[in-house]
Amino acid sequence: MTAPEPPRVQTIGLTLGDASGIGPEIVLKACAALSAEFDLRVIGDRRWLAREAARLGLPMPVAVDDVGRLPDDLQIGKIDPRAGQAAWQAIVHGARRAQAGDLRALVTAPISKEAMQAAGHDYPGHTELLAELAGRVPVRMMLAHDSLRVVLATIHLPLRAAIDRLDVDLILQTLLITDRALRQSGITRPRIAVAGLNPHAGEGGLFGREEIDIIAPAIAAARGQGVDAQGPYAPDTVFMRARGLQTVDAVIAMYHDQGLIPIKYLGLDEGVNITIGLPYVRTSPDHGTAFDIAGRLDSDGTGRANPASLIAAIRMAARMSEPRTPQAAASP
Amino acid sequence: MTAPEPPRVQTIGLTLGDASGIGPEIVLKACAALSAEFDLRVIGDRRWLAREAARLGLPMPVAVDDVGRLPDDLQIGKIDPRAGQAAWQAIVHGARRAQAGDLRALVTAPISKEAMQAAGHDYPGHTELLAELAGRVPVRMMLAHDSLRVVLATIHLPLRAAIDRLDVDLILQTLLITDRALRQSGITRPRIAVAGLNPHAGEGGLFGREEIDIIAPAIAAARGQGVDAQGPYAPDTVFMRARGLQTVDAVIAMYHDQGLIPIKYLGLDEGVNITIGLPYVRTSPDHGTAFDIAGRLDSDGTGRANPASLIAAIRMAARMSEPRTPQAAASP
Repeated sequence: MTAPEPPRVQTIGLTLGDASGIGPEIVLKACAALSAEFDLRVIGDRRWLAREAARLGLPMPVAVDDVGRLPDDLQIGKIDPRAGQAAWQAIVHGARRAQAGDLRALVTAPISKEAMQAAGHDYPGHTELLAELAGRVPVRMMLAHDSLRVVLATIHLPLRAAIDRLDVDLILQTLLITDRALRQSGITRPRIAVAGLNPHAGEGGLFGREEIDIIAPAIAAARGQGVDAQGPYAPDTVFMRARGLQTVDAVIAMYHDQGLIPIKYLGLDEGVNITIGLPYVRTSPDHGTAFDIAGRLDSDGTGRANPASLIAAIRMAARMSEPRTPQAAASP
Repeated sequence: MTAPEPPRVQTIGLTLGDASGIGPEIVLKACAALSAEFDLRVIGDRRWLAREAARLGLPMPVAVDDVGRLPDDLQIGKIDPRAGQAAWQAIVHGARRAQAGDLRALVTAPISKEAMQAAGHDYPGHTELLAELAGRVPVRMMLAHDSLRVVLATIHLPLRAAIDRLDVDLILQTLLITDRALRQSGITRPRIAVAGLNPHAGEGGLFGREEIDIIAPAIAAARGQGVDAQGPYAPDTVFMRARGLQTVDAVIAMYHDQGLIPIKYLGLDEGVNITIGLPYVRTSPDHGTAFDIAGRLDSDGTGRANPASLIAAIRMAARMSEPRTPQAAASP
C-alpha cells in the first residue's frame, strides 16, 4: 500500500562564483571530471563559460542556466562590481531552484565579498545570503574533511564578541541543527562532541565558567531531546581525538579559529564547507577566489587553479542529498 | 689571547616528578635508553628509584642526587601531599643546581599540581615555580615538535582574561624572549611569525581591533630591536604554513588553545615543553602524571608508561644547551 515514489530530482546546481576569480575555471574542470558521474547544471553566463572553456581547452558543460550576464571587458584578478552582481544573481537563482525542489543540492564556487558589496549586496558570505533567501532560518557552517567534521557555534566575529554571543540557546540550536544534518546525510545515530571555550575546558571553573554555566546545560538539554552530545571537552585534544571519525561524527567548536585551525591543518584542498540548517543541501570549496592565480596558465597551457576542493564539495553534496528511506517507513 | 675555556658542564638534571604518577617509571626508562649518550643525573629518592628499577626490571641510574624522601606506604595512582612535597623538593634542588651552573640543563618529569598544593606549594605548574626560584624573571612556555615550535603569549587563563591580558609590552616581551631562546639554541637569525587574535587576523578591523592596536605595534617594536618578527597572520593558517620549520622558526600564539591545538595535532608523544626566559635550559614532556596507568604492568611484565616524550625532552635539552661560541667572540 505504498504510494508511488515521486520522480527523483538528480540535478546538482553549481554556481559560477566571481568570474574575476578562479570560479569559472574550477567549475569547468569539475564538470569535465564529474559529468559522467553526476547530473550537473551550471548557473552562470553561458557565453563567458564558452569563452573560458575554449581558452582552457576544456569541454563546455551540457546543462547551463544562463544567468548573470558578464561584460566582455571584465578584468581577471580584479574586484569588479559587475562580477559581484552576476555572482549574486546566480546564487539567488540557484537558491530559488533548490528551494523549489528543482535541484538535489547546490554547490557554490567562491565569491568576492568586496565585489558583491560594491554591487550593493552586503553579506559576509554565501551562508548569510542563503539563510535570508530561505526565510532567515538558523544555519551553521560545517567544515567537513574525510577524517573530521567541525560545526562552528559562532563564525565571523571578533573573538570577544564570539564569547559574548555564546548562550545555552545558541549551543543547543547548534547541536540540534548538527544532529539533523548528520541524520539527513545517512548517519543513523550521530555522536557529537562539544569543545569547551577555555583552556582544559575551564578545569572545573578555575579557568572560566562558560563550560559550567552555558555549555554543559546546553549539552544536557540536547541530550533530553535525543541528541547524543558529549562534553565539554578540552579544546586542545578533542579535535585530535575525533580525527578519523571512529568515535565521534562531528565536533562543535565555540569560535572560528578553534574549529578552523584543526580543519585547515588536514590540508587545504580536500576540505568542504557545508551550510547546515537550510531546507536543501549546500556545499562549497574551502578556499576563496584566488585572484592571484585566476586566469594564469601553466607552461603546458593548462589553467593553474586546482578544482580538488570543488570536486570534493560536489561529491559531498551528492552523498548528503542521496534519497533515503524515511525513518517513518520503518514503523508499522 | 683567548682565556682558557672553563670546563664544560655536561650533566643534565632530571627530576623524578610525582612518584604516585608515571614519573619514576619514565625517568628509569629514559636513563636506560640515553645513559650512554648523555651524562644524566636523577634528582629524587634513591631508595624509591632502586625499588622501582627492581620492580620494572630496569637498570638503576648511576648518578642520583638523593632528594625528596618518599614514604613506603605511598599509593600509586592517588594524589598524596607527601609525593607533592618530595616532587617540590626535587624541583627546588634541581633549579638551584642549574642556577649555580652545576647542570647544563634541567628536565622535569610530570608533577601533580593538586599534590603540590596539598603540600602547601601553590603553583599552577613547574613554569611559575621555576620563574620564582630564578628571581621572578619573565618566562614563556614554548611547545616544540620536530616540525613546529609555538610560544604562548598567555597560558592558563580563562579565554576572556587572556584577551584582557594582551598588550604591546606582553607581546613585545614574548618576542624578545623567543628570539633570545632561539639564538641560544643555535639558530643564527630566528624568523618568528605572530598569530592574530581574531578570525582572519581581524580582516582590517572588521572582526576586532587587537591586531591593529596591540599586535602590529608590538611586532614593529620588536623589529626595531632586531627581531625578525612577521605578522599578525590569520590564526587558522599560520600554524599550517609554519609546519616543517622551512620558512618560520617559531609561531607566537595569543592564547593557550590557539597554540596547543596545532601542537597536539602533531602527536602527543613527541611534543616537548620548554620554559624560555630562565637563566638555564629547562624542558619537560608534553603530558601529565597519567595516574590511570601509573604502576601498571603489561602482560610481558614491562611497565605501561611510554618514555618517548621525556626522551624527546632530554634530547631537546641537550641540543638547546650545547656549548656555543659566543657571538661576542666574533667581534674584533
